[in-house]
Amino acid sequence: MKIAFIGLGNMGGPMALNLHKAGHDVGAFDLSKPACDKLAEGGVRIAADAGTCVLGAEVVISMLPASQHVEALYLGNDKQPGLLPQLAEGALVIDCSTIAAATSRKVADTAKARGLAFIDAPVSGGTGGAIAGTLTFMVGGDTAALERARPILEKMGANIFHAGSVGAGQTAKICNNMLLGILMAGTSEAIALGVANGLDPKVLSEIMRRSSGGNWALEKYNPMPGVMETAPASKGYAGGFGTDLMLKDLGLAQENAAAVKAATPLGGLARNLYAAHSLAGHGGLDFSSIIKMMQKG
Amino acid sequence: MKIAFIGLGNMGGPMALNLHKAGHDVGAFDLSKPACDKLAEGGVRIAADAGTCVLGAEVVISMLPASQHVEALYLGNDKQPGLLPQLAEGALVIDCSTIAAATSRKVADTAKARGLAFIDAPVSGGTGGAIAGTLTFMVGGDTAALERARPILEKMGANIFHAGSVGAGQTAKICNNMLLGILMAGTSEAIALGVANGLDPKVLSEIMRRSSGGNWALEKYNPMPGVMETAPASKGYAGGFGTDLMLKDLGLAQENAAAVKAATPLGGLARNLYAAHSLAGHGGLDFSSIIKMMQKG
Repeated sequence: MKIAFIGLGNMGGPMALNLHKAGHDVGAFDLSKPACDKLAEGGVRIAADAGTCVLGAEVVISMLPASQHVEALYLGNDKQPGLLPQLAEGALVIDCSTIAAATSRKVADTAKARGLAFIDAPVSGGTGGAIAGTLTFMVGGDTAALERARPILEKMGANIFHAGSVGAGQTAKICNNMLLGILMAGTSEAIALGVANGLDPKVLSEIMRRSSGGNWALEKYNPMPGVMETAPASKGYAGGFGTDLMLKDLGLAQENAAAVKAATPLGGLARNLYAAHSLAGHGGLDFSSIIKMMQKG
Repeated sequence: MKIAFIGLGNMGGPMALNLHKAGHDVGAFDLSKPACDKLAEGGVRIAADAGTCVLGAEVVISMLPASQHVEALYLGNDKQPGLLPQLAEGALVIDCSTIAAATSRKVADTAKARGLAFIDAPVSGGTGGAIAGTLTFMVGGDTAALERARPILEKMGANIFHAGSVGAGQTAKICNNMLLGILMAGTSEAIALGVANGLDPKVLSEIMRRSSGGNWALEKYNPMPGVMETAPASKGYAGGFGTDLMLKDLGLAQENAAAVKAATPLGGLARNLYAAHSLAGHGGLDFSSIIKMMQKG
């Protein structure tokens, strides 16, 4: 299948490579020359620009940093024309970026008017999951479009959830990541409180993991250095999911909550905690480093 | 073994009954006559008062509402003498109440001076676990005392964790319950945000359960009515663990945090959310009803 892949960063790069390895005819593009060069080394055909990239493609996949990039790519702005008018008739657009649900719906509406199918399919699983092809996709869109996308998504991920109509993938992702931000900070507080009382963080973590405090952070991603060898906490908080990325997702959750008048008191506080953590210079560290805020410096 | 059991409420009652059923010689007492009558119906011998109850007992178990009750029982106050001087030489005291760790240590110190062994062994698992004998005990105290207590605790519970020295059981319990309060409120926010965006709460819950938002609430105790048949949410928030009990535990966590100068921003906010929920008249409902605060009335 002829696939155009736009956005070759830490996530998009390995995702495009997995599609190439699976035998698809992948053409790729990124504004960053080094990102393109890396993919070219892997044997992926690099296009001269985004417009050239999508010519004749049956499927267009995008993996971009934020709402404005996705909107500019497909709908255009005062500096560039949008891609949608250039896509082949009946093409399927899969946007894997984590952006505002409203932007997904806006692009989907324009795509539909042109007879194109669109799904939003943001991912979780990090760069490790992107490389291993074990990402989780949270998909918004109609069932027919999802079924067209499924064989392609399966080359990049291990779990595919159908969250609802267009935009629902984004909503599921920000709900999940808001909860993740809360439970990582909450787990950090609980462990730090125990340690301040003289408890062994390993013993306390194990007790809570097997009790009603059990959660993904205690299971896979303990924020306290030394408790879990494989966690970023035990590697100086390198790799993993950066504080600034968590801050971005918590910001999207708050924007969304404001738009629908939802009450998210812990989500709002969590965003401010990660913002303060980023201001303190830890934006590049894994988000589990939030426990530093609860420890003596 | 001759056991004195003091405090026969919703938790202590069934715990004492399980020890009686296991063949121990249980003498029991509670200030509430109906609580005593209920145990008497189960065949448990009821003592005239706490002092009579503990006479000659090898093990004394207490399950009381709060720190001041435990302190008054063992150390006495201006209205009553403490029990410790009346205990048989070498007796083991097991306090299962959820109280301040500092109170546990205070009672343990006096017990030690009298040659008595003491452990704090607060529980989780609720009234269902107390009746079924499947409680989780979080134990603080030395290993020798815990090993003496173990065969007795095993008659009332399924999991026994050794958290550390005296008081550590209390600390582990409040750390766990603070985290539980945070993750239940956080899970409620995330589900409510998704629903406000048109997502199906069952679909969203399942996506988050299997993703990095996964936690005990999504696994066993979903706060949204109709998602999980067996959860209190699907039974009008009856039964389960009351909002006022969660509020008490979150208050203990904040007292402790203040004493050791720990930072617990989400724990502090969670306490205030449950306090507001209680003020709104929901103190008697299961604590997962906190989701009402995030829903249209």
